[in-house]
Amino acid sequence: MSLSLSDSPSAANRAAMTSDPSRPEARAPRGFNDRRARDVVSERAILAAVSGVYERWGFEPLETGAFEYANALGKFLPDADRPNEGVFALQDDDEQWMALRYDLTAPLARFAAQNWETLPKPFRRYAFGPVWRNEKPGPGRFREFWQCDADTVGSARPEADAEIIAMAVEGLEAAGLPAGSALIKINNRKLLNGLMTAAGVADETQKLAVLRAVDKLDRLGPDGVRLLLGEGRKDESGDFTKGAGLNGAAAERVLAFTAAGAGDRSSTLAKLADVVGGSAEGEEGLAELAAIDAALNGLGVGADRATFDPSVVRGLEYYTGAVFEAELLLSTLDEKGQPMRFGSIGGGGRYDDLVARFTGQQTPATGFSFGVSRLASALKAAGRDLGKAARGPVVVIAFDQSRMADYFAVAQEIRAAGIAAEVYLGTSGMRPQMKYADRRLSPAAVIVGEDELAAGTVTIKDLDLGRELASKVTDNAEWREQRPGQQTIPRGELTAALRRILDAG
Amino acid sequence: MSLSLSDSPSAANRAAMTSDPSRPEARAPRGFNDRRARDVVSERAILAAVSGVYERWGFEPLETGAFEYANALGKFLPDADRPNEGVFALQDDDEQWMALRYDLTAPLARFAAQNWETLPKPFRRYAFGPVWRNEKPGPGRFREFWQCDADTVGSARPEADAEIIAMAVEGLEAAGLPAGSALIKINNRKLLNGLMTAAGVADETQKLAVLRAVDKLDRLGPDGVRLLLGEGRKDESGDFTKGAGLNGAAAERVLAFTAAGAGDRSSTLAKLADVVGGSAEGEEGLAELAAIDAALNGLGVGADRATFDPSVVRGLEYYTGAVFEAELLLSTLDEKGQPMRFGSIGGGGRYDDLVARFTGQQTPATGFSFGVSRLASALKAAGRDLGKAARGPVVVIAFDQSRMADYFAVAQEIRAAGIAAEVYLGTSGMRPQMKYADRRLSPAAVIVGEDELAAGTVTIKDLDLGRELASKVTDNAEWREQRPGQQTIPRGELTAALRRILDAG
Repeated sequence: MSLSLSDSPSAANRAAMTSDPSRPEARAPRGFNDRRARDVVSERAILAAVSGVYERWGFEPLETGAFEYANALGKFLPDADRPNEGVFALQDDDEQWMALRYDLTAPLARFAAQNWETLPKPFRRYAFGPVWRNEKPGPGRFREFWQCDADTVGSARPEADAEIIAMAVEGLEAAGLPAGSALIKINNRKLLNGLMTAAGVADETQKLAVLRAVDKLDRLGPDGVRLLLGEGRKDESGDFTKGAGLNGAAAERVLAFTAAGAGDRSSTLAKLADVVGGSAEGEEGLAELAAIDAALNGLGVGADRATFDPSVVRGLEYYTGAVFEAELLLSTLDEKGQPMRFGSIGGGGRYDDLVARFTGQQTPATGFSFGVSRLASALKAAGRDLGKAARGPVVVIAFDQSRMADYFAVAQEIRAAGIAAEVYLGTSGMRPQMKYADRRLSPAAVIVGEDELAAGTVTIKDLDLGRELASKVTDNAEWREQRPGQQTIPRGELTAALRRILDAG
Repeated sequence: MSLSLSDSPSAANRAAMTSDPSRPEARAPRGFNDRRARDVVSERAILAAVSGVYERWGFEPLETGAFEYANALGKFLPDADRPNEGVFALQDDDEQWMALRYDLTAPLARFAAQNWETLPKPFRRYAFGPVWRNEKPGPGRFREFWQCDADTVGSARPEADAEIIAMAVEGLEAAGLPAGSALIKINNRKLLNGLMTAAGVADETQKLAVLRAVDKLDRLGPDGVRLLLGEGRKDESGDFTKGAGLNGAAAERVLAFTAAGAGDRSSTLAKLADVVGGSAEGEEGLAELAAIDAALNGLGVGADRATFDPSVVRGLEYYTGAVFEAELLLSTLDEKGQPMRFGSIGGGGRYDDLVARFTGQQTPATGFSFGVSRLASALKAAGRDLGKAARGPVVVIAFDQSRMADYFAVAQEIRAAGIAAEVYLGTSGMRPQMKYADRRLSPAAVIVGEDELAAGTVTIKDLDLGRELASKVTDNAEWREQRPGQQTIPRGELTAALRRILDAG
């Protein structure tokens, strides 16, 4: 059933709110969302677990500001007509354009260039925080979201890529993904570049068109990609996409390359050597993958967690060597209840040109990034939602204005035992207070009335048990009779009794 | 000695960077700072400790987006000429002005108004994150900084204020401030308002002038404030500040009021009753402070941690009842090495009008806020800097390209024991690698050369000990002879030996 807007109380409320034109409407800007306890707890647990892993691998935390000068962000340079294209940009007092960071890599490149002289080299850092994209918001598509990145700047060694990959695996598992549920698929740009050079493709535009075609393999399959590698492809709606213009033999060679991934890493390497062999750049890519394989073996990361997959492309004009993509293998249900692959939850690769934008000196760098909310969704899909732990405090019921200090003392005693507790601070009676506690998902309510104060006792209502029983008992009279989950005990036993309720919950 | 800019390598470097006009300069925008591990670790430890306390008091975490519609931010409305006055504002695609939040209270008011129907009431939430102010940056004065807030919306009870105060005390101590080093000074706007009404001051502008005068008590002393309460005051530079225009008796009454704070809370209340007694609003303020006192007693918070101080003013047009200020009592040294009081590290109070801006319905609210970096500075001043723990990983020295997988396996073994470790991934020799480890504040370097691999041993260099001895030994030959802190042990004893070095550090 869908409510018409005018029927819903919140719409009526909204109308009342805006009836006075001097009053602003209470709403967040489009594409920005408020996150309540459950989501916050999930995401913080992820970040704490991943930070612990990354620090154990020698990566130091770094926090940069929200703004960068717009020209430091590269291709997202605002122009005079549309200064907010892609990013949120504004002009500072001194006329310089600043923009909110759209990822955590551009600020790292700026930081590394700015501080290169004094940094330990290679420089390993991790970072997490919000990034902003000035794009059209939609369901589940926000203009502000959190990323978590780890990067090594200043090492051209393939082992630096391997380290990032192995650490990403460990991080994702520490965050709660079941071992083996995520697979890192690794490729190297130099392989495909080498292959294309060997096939006589020298034009950069044509190379990009080939990459773009290969990137559609998941969606279109080999036949669709074959068309895009050649003259072009007409889709169901009749729209024609111009192809890369390879001849038939070259297109088949590219397709054979993308199909070479399978099973363990060394046999994939052998197959790739057959397809790519010959070109110098291809050989370089193969040697790098071989070094990554050896390092991953040293780190105990098998093919069940990291494989070579020549069909992986990622950020077209960005990566210069190894690229990797973390794919969640678990199935989840789509909106219609159909099983679907969750797909990519993060990725990265080697970008050797980013720092050079500032310094003119090539500075090798490699990194891995994931979206924090996306990983939280993946954990939910995997049944590992840490946000479930976000439950309410024990609520001490407030009866009598003159007894507030007593209630506070009881709450303080509960907190001193490490259990979250609060005194109800509204002005409503017993029943709404119980409803409040229930709404907060409180494990228990504590009642300290005149009787209890006189007798040195407390009454505890187990709200978990109450909720459970309420779903079974339908007779109101019977319900009142039984007072399920309610016990009156000596005051000295309060925190022990609450602990038992919490442990059972 | 001060280096001229042209002498410093970083300036030379900068010049090289900017020599190519197509290259952007590598620098953060003015007023935005990069924070390295030490600061990040300190601030995260503060936020983790405070979050733990706040959640134990029943406050749930809430995260809102960076942007709010500018009209939701109240008085910081951008005007057409200077849209960035005070805040960072920009116009969205749909022409609406959005601004980065300048505190965490305005977004809370918007959120509470937007979701009031479905929230548990009273609604307790805490939040932390960056806020942005478009002000002139200066030394130690940033345009982006982190705040941490806790607020209760929907309770007019003075006990809600008391709860916030007691929780703030516990939060500051959990963050590491020694017990008794911070004092919360509490006042109530209604007292001074009542006093002024009784003295015949009905004009709001005059009331604000009185508040503004009282707020200068710390800086100008009673004599200066007496002038500002009356006709006005000429400062050292000859500038004249117009006064509030009170007559002599009224000014003395205000000064007597501000001087009434001393010792325990109940005797201050008695003194205040003498000064304020009579006005209805003053009586209301007194009753609220009495209820706060009783609740604080119930919570075990004595006058050594929270006192009444009638000289506290805070945010002039914002607070409507209780106001409080957290002052650090520790002395610290100023730039010239002179002892100085650290002063305020946070504050808050009751603001009953903020949600009403949206809904038209008065919604009582109260909260406490502190600046995260400021508390980190206070902890440093108190000798409780948790950032000291931010040290580097154990560094596994890399000799031989063909042995990288072995080095990785050693690093993995060390990490599996919970000790941070990494393989050196640069291309330099032994000596620069040691220098790198030293720069990273590594506790130890691990050497697995051909000899060690053949013998099944590892060599550990205790860098802490090395640094300590290096400060004493001056003879290079003697140094090389002794190889201080270096030991070769069976491979199986590696992690135990590293653990000993870490525990000694």
